[in-house]
Amino acid sequence: MSSSKPTQPKGTRDFGPEQAAKRNYIVDTIKTQFIRYGFSQIETPAMENLSVLTGKYGDEGDQLLFKILNSGDFLKNSTESDFNLGSDHLLKKVAEKGLRYDLTVPFARFIVQNQHQITMPFKRFQIQPVWRADKPQKGRYREFYQCDADIVGSNDLWNEAELSLLIHDVFENLNYDGFVLKINHRELLNEMARVVGLAGKEMPFCITIDKLDKIGAEKVNVELEKLGANDQLQKVISLFDLKTSNEEKLNSYIELVGENRGTEDLSQYFKLLAAANRKNMKIELDLSLARGLTYYTGTIFEVKATDVTIGSITGGGRYDNLTGVFGLKGTSGVGISFGLDRIYDVLEEKDLFPSDLGQSSELLIAHFDETSKIHGIGVLAAVRNSGIRAEIFPDNAKIKKQFNYADKKRIPFVLVIGSEEIKTQTYALKDMKSGTQESMSLEEILNKLAKMKTA
Amino acid sequence: MSSSKPTQPKGTRDFGPEQAAKRNYIVDTIKTQFIRYGFSQIETPAMENLSVLTGKYGDEGDQLLFKILNSGDFLKNSTESDFNLGSDHLLKKVAEKGLRYDLTVPFARFIVQNQHQITMPFKRFQIQPVWRADKPQKGRYREFYQCDADIVGSNDLWNEAELSLLIHDVFENLNYDGFVLKINHRELLNEMARVVGLAGKEMPFCITIDKLDKIGAEKVNVELEKLGANDQLQKVISLFDLKTSNEEKLNSYIELVGENRGTEDLSQYFKLLAAANRKNMKIELDLSLARGLTYYTGTIFEVKATDVTIGSITGGGRYDNLTGVFGLKGTSGVGISFGLDRIYDVLEEKDLFPSDLGQSSELLIAHFDETSKIHGIGVLAAVRNSGIRAEIFPDNAKIKKQFNYADKKRIPFVLVIGSEEIKTQTYALKDMKSGTQESMSLEEILNKLAKMKTA
Repeated sequence: MSSSKPTQPKGTRDFGPEQAAKRNYIVDTIKTQFIRYGFSQIETPAMENLSVLTGKYGDEGDQLLFKILNSGDFLKNSTESDFNLGSDHLLKKVAEKGLRYDLTVPFARFIVQNQHQITMPFKRFQIQPVWRADKPQKGRYREFYQCDADIVGSNDLWNEAELSLLIHDVFENLNYDGFVLKINHRELLNEMARVVGLAGKEMPFCITIDKLDKIGAEKVNVELEKLGANDQLQKVISLFDLKTSNEEKLNSYIELVGENRGTEDLSQYFKLLAAANRKNMKIELDLSLARGLTYYTGTIFEVKATDVTIGSITGGGRYDNLTGVFGLKGTSGVGISFGLDRIYDVLEEKDLFPSDLGQSSELLIAHFDETSKIHGIGVLAAVRNSGIRAEIFPDNAKIKKQFNYADKKRIPFVLVIGSEEIKTQTYALKDMKSGTQESMSLEEILNKLAKMKTA
Repeated sequence: MSSSKPTQPKGTRDFGPEQAAKRNYIVDTIKTQFIRYGFSQIETPAMENLSVLTGKYGDEGDQLLFKILNSGDFLKNSTESDFNLGSDHLLKKVAEKGLRYDLTVPFARFIVQNQHQITMPFKRFQIQPVWRADKPQKGRYREFYQCDADIVGSNDLWNEAELSLLIHDVFENLNYDGFVLKINHRELLNEMARVVGLAGKEMPFCITIDKLDKIGAEKVNVELEKLGANDQLQKVISLFDLKTSNEEKLNSYIELVGENRGTEDLSQYFKLLAAANRKNMKIELDLSLARGLTYYTGTIFEVKATDVTIGSITGGGRYDNLTGVFGLKGTSGVGISFGLDRIYDVLEEKDLFPSDLGQSSELLIAHFDETSKIHGIGVLAAVRNSGIRAEIFPDNAKIKKQFNYADKKRIPFVLVIGSEEIKTQTYALKDMKSGTQESMSLEEILNKLAKMKTA
């Protein structure tokens, strides 16, 4: 055997049968709700032209893009002096494509390219992997899935309400209720910044507020004072500590800071949401919610797990001008992104995955010799035709090995065929969980398995 | 508007809602059968180390691998003399990873890496994109999906029979019966080569036979004579023209060439298959079926569309030593790969896609003003709770625009709400296909839509 086992690249993962089944369970649940809410799926290629990707995620993002070498003699357009000018320069000569970094920029490209075929408002969902050359660490991967739903071409706050309902339906269907959906509005933060004398410094203000969870109120205070905040700061920051209802929080904000587009939007959002009459909403206006991403311009969302220390499991918000970078103005939208890996960790930690996931076959047919196997192939056809997922052990192997296979594959029942069984047309059916074994006709076996299935 | 619209890279594609829905339909059908037959899903990363990929697909394959630039200052380990030695040399210094070229090599790596956790025989399926830097042309893409099922760790011919049944179930569930499943065995071809005096030249013999469809019998004859075939050639080649049953063909072969591992395997295959009692099998022993891929060592399969000029839509075969290249001996297996793009083209050409694919919502709620919309949000909640996929137009827009939206999105019914409707609690329900409109209570509407759904 070779001494150097092959491995997958750093920061990437294989998913074996059990993990793949659990991931499918989450993705299928999200997808079902996306479709139920009228979103249509699109897919874009893994590779995008670097001209599409570069400059969309800031300097840091550009560094984190995976770039693909031009195929063939990739140096054919490069000279020694190109080489000597260094990586950043040579890059432009040797790589035209990169792997997508998120699903938002490819979606913007898709809209611009298909603008004459698309009917607005356009509700699209997209579930695909993205790649980032981040330093791999616990919970941070270089390849991971995003599950995005966006509505573009509509400014109405109903879209925000709709996405909030969808989030509740997704987690309800995953049987997880330990979350809270936090909502805020960029304009509320911007206006706060202006009130504390930081007009023109709204972005640094937001970035500092965003650190509250990490560094605490005291240090945030110090940083904001350094930025130049005036003596209104204490009053404004005290809004973050309010434990009142969403409506009362919003009123407290208006009293102190005044009305603005943000307060109007949120009032309308709560009004529309109330019309949907949904019980047990877990929505919390969090006036300190900032989210780092610069492209949000209106509402911002974040779903946090409250009973597991995993942080944000879903996020989103409204952006004013998604396609502006590609020359198409006026396409505003709002979207959310479910974080598959983090939701996986939550369900794992709370033990919320259904127990029969990843169990492929419901019955294994085991046999003592070639004649029994041939007979078993006929039995298998009948079992499958009755709608039961079944397989027959392919090799003529010791019966113990066949049982071991069923055990390892978590196949719950084994039907055993030997010469006696062929003669009497009754088969031994072993329940792998209880260990009990019964002698039954094929019809009785099919009835029993069908009953277990509907139970 | 910008003059330079962004585009996706050459040879790659976006899939809009309708195409994505059709592709999902095929993938879901295949996946359902994979699971029904006891296969478990795995997923591997898009990127693999080049040490895993290189040398596995021949020199041409190495050229067609997409290579990923090392992140950061990718030139940091390179000197001017590395640059001057050219692309092939510099490649090793600047790129460690590549995009997967197929699903078989990553699967082999997966087995070797997880050999102590895997129970043999291991039945795995994998449905993921692969990337090849081929020259883009009609029907050939740089990113495309493969849908693979393999059984490793079992030599039994039942596996071949099982895959043949699975192929029939996949196409039956896609409502396509214009195919034929061709089967042959590498050893049959190898033995033929020896009989015509080409011992040691079995591979060139197979490669030449593989061209029968393209260049015709006459030219194949000439090429084989050039290779050094003796005067037995005419007799042997006449086997290809037999129009008899599979059993008779096999007997004619044995009479002329003799028995060998291939004839034994195929006899056993037909015997096991017969035990499954399946009607309408479309299996044809094709003694000229060769398939180019060098790693097949036993049975080979190919599914051809007979009523559409698209060629092979599924292929596969048995390989003796999948994991040998990674130092793990003795893992033989057999597998098939469904070609998503070609199956798509067949279903499109034969008009076999169900008509309601990609129709996301079953009902649109349209409204005349803000009050109607608020009322409509309550109605929407009731409609959704009844299990009907529905949405409400998010903006306060002209009713014509709302109908146009339903029309473009192929939403079959529109429920209209105005002040009169709110008063009477009866709504106008428009059937978008027939154009008729009825006034109904919400209960009547829900009953009608539920009935249409089960119809």
